[in-house]
Amino acid sequence: MSSLVGLDALLREFEERKMRALARAISWAESGRGAELIRHVYARAGRAMTIGLTGPPGVGKSTLSAAIVRKARSVGKTVGVISVDPSSPFSHGALLGDRIRLTEHFVDPDVFIRSMASRGHLGGVAGATADAALLMDAFGIDVILIETVGVGQSEIEIAELAQKTLVALQPGSGDSVQVLKAGIMEIADIFVVNKADHPMANQMRREIRSMMEMLHFTGWVPELVMTQALSGQGIDELWEAIAAHVAFLNETGEIEEKRREAFVHQVKQLALGELQHKLDRELEARADVGLDPYAAAERVLLEFGMHGHERYEHARPNRARATVKGL
Amino acid sequence: MSSLVGLDALLREFEERKMRALARAISWAESGRGAELIRHVYARAGRAMTIGLTGPPGVGKSTLSAAIVRKARSVGKTVGVISVDPSSPFSHGALLGDRIRLTEHFVDPDVFIRSMASRGHLGGVAGATADAALLMDAFGIDVILIETVGVGQSEIEIAELAQKTLVALQPGSGDSVQVLKAGIMEIADIFVVNKADHPMANQMRREIRSMMEMLHFTGWVPELVMTQALSGQGIDELWEAIAAHVAFLNETGEIEEKRREAFVHQVKQLALGELQHKLDRELEARADVGLDPYAAAERVLLEFGMHGHERYEHARPNRARATVKGL
Repeated sequence: MSSLVGLDALLREFEERKMRALARAISWAESGRGAELIRHVYARAGRAMTIGLTGPPGVGKSTLSAAIVRKARSVGKTVGVISVDPSSPFSHGALLGDRIRLTEHFVDPDVFIRSMASRGHLGGVAGATADAALLMDAFGIDVILIETVGVGQSEIEIAELAQKTLVALQPGSGDSVQVLKAGIMEIADIFVVNKADHPMANQMRREIRSMMEMLHFTGWVPELVMTQALSGQGIDELWEAIAAHVAFLNETGEIEEKRREAFVHQVKQLALGELQHKLDRELEARADVGLDPYAAAERVLLEFGMHGHERYEHARPNRARATVKGL
Repeated sequence: MSSLVGLDALLREFEERKMRALARAISWAESGRGAELIRHVYARAGRAMTIGLTGPPGVGKSTLSAAIVRKARSVGKTVGVISVDPSSPFSHGALLGDRIRLTEHFVDPDVFIRSMASRGHLGGVAGATADAALLMDAFGIDVILIETVGVGQSEIEIAELAQKTLVALQPGSGDSVQVLKAGIMEIADIFVVNKADHPMANQMRREIRSMMEMLHFTGWVPELVMTQALSGQGIDELWEAIAAHVAFLNETGEIEEKRREAFVHQVKQLALGELQHKLDRELEARADVGLDPYAAAERVLLEFGMHGHERYEHARPNRARATVKGL
């Protein structure tokens, strides 16, 4: 359907800030036809505040999203929510259930809610999400919330597209230590212990605090906020923590670094999609009988202008913001 | 430590079928130093039967693995188990708990159990898994079971490294319809409805059967086996279904196709790891100020000899073995 509408007409409606133009623009991007569109609107982007929200299933992310949206609306901000479920075909049912909690905002014209699941985009779901965030930003939306279901590596990566990452945790889940071991500590700008009325809530707070004491932070030290998203308790404090992080980013100039990281990430996803596409074609075309996989990989890399040896001898270190003290 | 042991010494012990040499070889591969090793032992591989086992958390995959291992041992086969948890930092606790169920086999010298979690391998955890399977095969192990925790896209992909894929489902979980919608149908060679004593077990069997009736299969039609892994019930039938699939692969010659797919997959992971590595370096080195992400991606692709336009206009169709009838 959207292919019947030309780029010029879409751009005009986009500039007139018609919601349906934003929806259509994201659909174009999702199906891999976003290049021209983004080229045209890119200069308008760069003003939005982007928030990533991640955490294990059942922690109440959607209720938390709804509460954040309500708060942002109450201070006059327009809000976009991108809900991403990159990896689990099993959770679609749950996702649908969760979405219902956001319905109160469906009638608000200044709240735009979008679920991402497309696999048509060359940069994968991360690439499609980056496009959607960029389009929302260029459209003039103030606050963009990227909510990921689950906390696998890909979910973390997607949350990191944002300028700040909220990690939601659930008391009594036994998750805290596992979570903190698994490198989540390094990506969280704000920890949100939701369901703060749970008898184990204070214990979880203590656990997170003691884990944090073992780490050395340069710059921002993650905040810890206790919420009860369903009743709205703690949401003001959460919003203040978000505002404090915004102020920190602006004062230190780190916001530029965050924007650059998001840009590089998006370029990388796009380029990688292209490389993967070419690689698939090359691998289909050849039949390297008798070669071992490493030798075959070396041969196909010649098609990308890569001549190498000792190439497989390097391991990739993980980028880490926080380092373990004294180890 | 392993770097102190030279390649020659390792290869000698590997040829003498010393278990510790296999363990060490996999560690080498996992940390990105497998190229030379695999080049030397590659010719010995190609005899093992590989089984992928996937399914949602809680379905009892580890109990099922243990039962399959027991069965395979009882008919005199040596067994390797590769347990993969590619995406979820939250499930490490559960993983540990699960592993305990395999402990009865830890004392059996003809059962080799290995958990994969390394991120040092250039081809990611899928690449490391492929290397481990190849090394087990070359070592002379008869049956290799690749068990993945969860059923995200990456888990499915890893299960597909194997010649056959078992999808375990749990009655009463409400998963069946979601699962079948999500394209799991297309990868399953054998459905295993575990916990067959559950009151909803027969309903799930009916659901799967009716979903299958809506599909058109060319070649192998997935088997459906009811098991109760804990008591061993249904494991003989499962083993027969596995044997029937082996016979099918051998008689039709499809085994060659499966081997080729696994080979291509591994080559792809390796090449992709290399490309990603170079891409990271290129992106670090440049500062494409003012360019939009699509233009920046186009520019960096020049470094890979890729000159293009209209490159982002194509979507990638998913490979599908089964197609929906009458739609």
